[in-house]
Amino acid sequence: MKRIGILTGGGDAPGLNAVIRAAVKTAIYEYDCEVFGIRNGYDGFVETNGIVPLSIDSVRGLLPRGGTILGAANRGNPYARKIVRDDKETLIDVSDEIIKGIERLEMDALLILGGDGTLHIAHELYKKGAPIIGVPKTIDNDISGTELAFGFDTAVGIATEALDRLHTTAESHHRVMVLELMGRDAGFIALHAGVAGGADVILIPELPFKFENILAEVRRRVEAGYLFSIVAVSEGAKPRGGKQVFSRSGDDIYVPRLGGIGQQVGGYIEKQGFESRVTVLGHLQRGGSPSSFDRWLATRFGAAAVRLAAQRKFDHMVALRAGQIVDVPLAEVTATAKRVDVNDDAIITARGMGVSFGDD
Amino acid sequence: MKRIGILTGGGDAPGLNAVIRAAVKTAIYEYDCEVFGIRNGYDGFVETNGIVPLSIDSVRGLLPRGGTILGAANRGNPYARKIVRDDKETLIDVSDEIIKGIERLEMDALLILGGDGTLHIAHELYKKGAPIIGVPKTIDNDISGTELAFGFDTAVGIATEALDRLHTTAESHHRVMVLELMGRDAGFIALHAGVAGGADVILIPELPFKFENILAEVRRRVEAGYLFSIVAVSEGAKPRGGKQVFSRSGDDIYVPRLGGIGQQVGGYIEKQGFESRVTVLGHLQRGGSPSSFDRWLATRFGAAAVRLAAQRKFDHMVALRAGQIVDVPLAEVTATAKRVDVNDDAIITARGMGVSFGDD
Amino acid sequence: MKRIGILTGGGDAPGLNAVIRAAVKTAIYEYDCEVFGIRNGYDGFVETNGIVPLSIDSVRGLLPRGGTILGAANRGNPYARKIVRDDKETLIDVSDEIIKGIERLEMDALLILGGDGTLHIAHELYKKGAPIIGVPKTIDNDISGTELAFGFDTAVGIATEALDRLHTTAESHHRVMVLELMGRDAGFIALHAGVAGGADVILIPELPFKFENILAEVRRRVEAGYLFSIVAVSEGAKPRGGKQVFSRSGDDIYVPRLGGIGQQVGGYIEKQGFESRVTVLGHLQRGGSPSSFDRWLATRFGAAAVRLAAQRKFDHMVALRAGQIVDVPLAEVTATAKRVDVNDDAIITARGMGVSFGDD
Amino acid sequence: MKRIGILTGGGDAPGLNAVIRAAVKTAIYEYDCEVFGIRNGYDGFVETNGIVPLSIDSVRGLLPRGGTILGAANRGNPYARKIVRDDKETLIDVSDEIIKGIERLEMDALLILGGDGTLHIAHELYKKGAPIIGVPKTIDNDISGTELAFGFDTAVGIATEALDRLHTTAESHHRVMVLELMGRDAGFIALHAGVAGGADVILIPELPFKFENILAEVRRRVEAGYLFSIVAVSEGAKPRGGKQVFSRSGDDIYVPRLGGIGQQVGGYIEKQGFESRVTVLGHLQRGGSPSSFDRWLATRFGAAAVRLAAQRKFDHMVALRAGQIVDVPLAEVTATAKRVDVNDDAIITARGMGVSFGDD
Repeated sequence: MKRIGILTGGGDAPGLNAVIRAAVKTAIYEYDCEVFGIRNGYDGFVETNGIVPLSIDSVRGLLPRGGTILGAANRGNPYARKIVRDDKETLIDVSDEIIKGIERLEMDALLILGGDGTLHIAHELYKKGAPIIGVPKTIDNDISGTELAFGFDTAVGIATEALDRLHTTAESHHRVMVLELMGRDAGFIALHAGVAGGADVILIPELPFKFENILAEVRRRVEAGYLFSIVAVSEGAKPRGGKQVFSRSGDDIYVPRLGGIGQQVGGYIEKQGFESRVTVLGHLQRGGSPSSFDRWLATRFGAAAVRLAAQRKFDHMVALRAGQIVDVPLAEVTATAKRVDVNDDAIITARGMGVSFGDD
Repeated sequence: MKRIGILTGGGDAPGLNAVIRAAVKTAIYEYDCEVFGIRNGYDGFVETNGIVPLSIDSVRGLLPRGGTILGAANRGNPYARKIVRDDKETLIDVSDEIIKGIERLEMDALLILGGDGTLHIAHELYKKGAPIIGVPKTIDNDISGTELAFGFDTAVGIATEALDRLHTTAESHHRVMVLELMGRDAGFIALHAGVAGGADVILIPELPFKFENILAEVRRRVEAGYLFSIVAVSEGAKPRGGKQVFSRSGDDIYVPRLGGIGQQVGGYIEKQGFESRVTVLGHLQRGGSPSSFDRWLATRFGAAAVRLAAQRKFDHMVALRAGQIVDVPLAEVTATAKRVDVNDDAIITARGMGVSFGDD
Repeated sequence: MKRIGILTGGGDAPGLNAVIRAAVKTAIYEYDCEVFGIRNGYDGFVETNGIVPLSIDSVRGLLPRGGTILGAANRGNPYARKIVRDDKETLIDVSDEIIKGIERLEMDALLILGGDGTLHIAHELYKKGAPIIGVPKTIDNDISGTELAFGFDTAVGIATEALDRLHTTAESHHRVMVLELMGRDAGFIALHAGVAGGADVILIPELPFKFENILAEVRRRVEAGYLFSIVAVSEGAKPRGGKQVFSRSGDDIYVPRLGGIGQQVGGYIEKQGFESRVTVLGHLQRGGSPSSFDRWLATRFGAAAVRLAAQRKFDHMVALRAGQIVDVPLAEVTATAKRVDVNDDAIITARGMGVSFGDD
Repeated sequence: MKRIGILTGGGDAPGLNAVIRAAVKTAIYEYDCEVFGIRNGYDGFVETNGIVPLSIDSVRGLLPRGGTILGAANRGNPYARKIVRDDKETLIDVSDEIIKGIERLEMDALLILGGDGTLHIAHELYKKGAPIIGVPKTIDNDISGTELAFGFDTAVGIATEALDRLHTTAESHHRVMVLELMGRDAGFIALHAGVAGGADVILIPELPFKFENILAEVRRRVEAGYLFSIVAVSEGAKPRGGKQVFSRSGDDIYVPRLGGIGQQVGGYIEKQGFESRVTVLGHLQRGGSPSSFDRWLATRFGAAAVRLAAQRKFDHMVALRAGQIVDVPLAEVTATAKRVDVNDDAIITARGMGVSFGDD
């Protein structure tokens, strides 16, 4: 193995830089390999100066830094790249240029760090001949095949800290505080942070809720002498029979919108006579320094991806299972989406402790 | 001095509990005094069980806790208290009941912790005979007569941390990240956090801005090779010639609304072709554990207020000046509002370093 | 199931209170059970007022609080309890009193939260007839049968933050900074924090080191232009052929001593001509608010322990495996000690990235 | 003004990089000036490659970074620089080389960031003709002429967080926890953190203590039902009639030693029958990201220093007074040392709340 490339796709997540650092160090120290960074996702293959060499010095000090030094701004799917031609926006397929780029630079492997969208494309590129190794990146924890991906632990930590802060205001003002969290299709962040932050109501996409049930819980608490309530809501939570305010866009970038589900829930409660305030945590969940766990996991993923490349085990993704780093075929990963198992012990635990999911 | 009361008015702020703890400990240990807590602002005087005894045990563990154990939920101004009579909302004056309550409990002094609204009422109650001592509480730092009040340092710290987080996403995605911060009439939080967090544009109520100037700065940066920008906006910032989206309500409670100035700014930039995201920090700024400075200041304020009470120096407020705790007449405090001095060295410093205030 | 008891043994760990809270809530809400807290470890059974009822109100606000409301101060092993008789210290067996206490209070189960020492005693008490359920608690992560116990993630987070802080001083002063961390027999904290905090040398009990190897790494870095180095040391790390400065005491309480291994390492490096400073993190690793992960894990453990009690599955311990809560026989848990697997992928990863373990 | 130099002396402090960033930005944007950084304190003037140009790009991302990019490793006083000649260590005066260096590079001003030792040398260099501007840097807050210097707020914040952590262990284990903090001659850190962290005993150099008084306070608390105590100790605290374990070395670098005052205090209490643990916070106080206040103050100091240079107001230091940036003659600054005023309101407040200083 003489040359490898690294590419980060989709939204940024705490730990991307730690993966890059680990991969560069392992490739250079252990395999005496050259490393190239592809900038701005797949775009680096079609843009001027889109591919840069990475040295040990390039990755100094990267471990605690959020974001990605390779950039995440991109024009999306290389199979349907937006360009302007004759004053009109049109979509073109630039996947061949990626294959050519890999060949031109004689890359023995290309590590692709991304969410399910990015990994799906990676799998397609493999079919075209690209020597792809996947590294799972998801704040939402919605990638199959791995127990966890880096970024999630940091996001849950930030969300939990936000719930701690809201608690003091809720208690002082006898209010219902609603916190809208990330999670379009998978409610892991709201579930984990809700449990860790002591939320009274947790709303997740996997368990469609009824507004009346939220109200019932708030009322039950007031009657028991607890004059405040905390509600943790996934952005993708939806009323039973209703529909999601968000739908999954191609690039997994979080865009908070006016009138999201958090504001709907807060508005409903307020109308029923309980003072209510809504906070949308938004981008604060994905920025900043990764937690120690995410740095640990990202470092192990980065190194493992390089070793997988050395074994030429392409079209596979590194993954965490029972504390060990393993690898899984990308085909398996992209075949199913990971969601909260609503019969899981975690849900049962929360219910048993009096948490309402608004579903009964 | 045999008996004192303590009351917290308006929105919660980190440090309220630390003031209560210091006042209770000082009153009991130093003056062998009884202490009563008035619950839910001025409402405690007119509600059942609204006044509770406070002991050394009542204040154990309070120092690091945000919020106020006395509660802040209230129906506002005692001179215009909302009640429902004959199915209609009406306003009544309950100030006499406060005076009677103080007399009935034979309070030698009543410490009132609050913002300018609350302190204004305190001053009026003094005129009616109440032995008032004021303690300034403001997240926004908009109370005259004191260099700082507790809560502000914590809020600036949280806002700065949020800017740090947004930086990594901004850099990775080549975006403009807009952060809307508290400050309806005074831009101190946005100014301090903006400088401490390295914002490129800072918008405050004291310096009406032009949208085009924000754009010019974003463009200037892109041309200089900095493909992202960070904008810190006070919720009360306003376009030149335009008007504020918020107006000051009676109770100084922060209510984030849809379509606030942050979203206007972000929307404008996006339309001009620069990808932009908006975060409204909202209540996260006022909750949680106070910073070490706020605990230190709150503790000194609480103890000083009790000593001022012992000296019967009523109608005065404790204040911080040049590192010392002093006292100032409430009449002076409520006569003028504190705003950012736009000719101050801090503004000049920021401008000199290339920060744009959108005003020229 | 009508009555259960809860007992916390050994040193405190972030998450103990979260376990107590979850167990109390689950027992009351789900099983309508009475709950008793045993104070000060096993001592509560033999002391006046050593057993207290726990209600929903007793556990309010406990989730983010470090330590244990049940107290951890104790006179150790109930099979060998220190007492003073005739002016001499002597050891007596009070295990029968524990059995009697359980019977007198008609406890259907006793949840015991503790490390391997405490769990070993629990297993012995079971043999005498006590209806024991174990909950693993270890900062060091040295309990077999579970992937993780609560407290470890928080400790690693604090240690990583300390390494981040030391980095800036190390870089500015061109120094070797040595950080001594907890871990008498198991080096997990130093390994995880060392990798997450970017240490250059990591010394753990499982890999006896040579002083010269540390020096060689420091020198190699200086020659490569990196004028500083960071060394993370488990308190139980030992030179090859040498012996540990610490030995495991009965109560797993951490006592930093003068002249520990951190200071030996720092002193050695300094003598070889490289400026060096030593920090012993000590108790700061075990105090304070638990991380979101530890709150999540502790909550699940607490609820699962109550459900295990309801199933009368005594002499078992709740455990984490592959993200699921399972149970394992206490006999298995206490049969072997968990140590860092020196052939594990984590060690290989660190070595591949240039980290020295001082062993070759 | 065409060229200025910047030099950081003594130990590192959070905020040094923020001063450098502000000075560089102000000098370039506002004065179109060239800026040079002197490396490793005064040593940069006598070492190869000791002086480097600083551009806007050099200071990107510096605001949140601890330490100093200019390095702080140095061989101390240029009037008595240690060198090895004929195998023997000897001291030589290299101050003339500094003057020549300033002339050779045609520096119109040299900003010197440092503590009292560094500023004293700066004042001497001014007498020799160097165009010096001082910027106060002290973790300990022991520089006269300014209310505060950057670094102190961060250090107090870290120390307060440590006290919070120790509280949970102290309470759980019914122990006396002793925390040794920085402050050789000035007890500001222990005083501020002790008050903010709720210490029961605070020992500072300005108030010599008696061991028996500490014990009396611990006993008094146990009798009142508080089975634990927290003791915050300045490293320079000393028993009445005894002597300090530390003496001030030339370079204001903190070196924790075995058997310091913290361990003496802990050992004494333990011998009297109260279980006790000691933590020495050491270097953790000076590293890491500066607090928002320190970034704000450092930024204002850096910009003000450049403006002072432009006014050719040499031999002066920038300072904070009553929230404003002012300047004071270096001769005044170095004439007296700042110490805790033992008759100050802060001390009275702490005593009134029941804190013991061990002095009566």
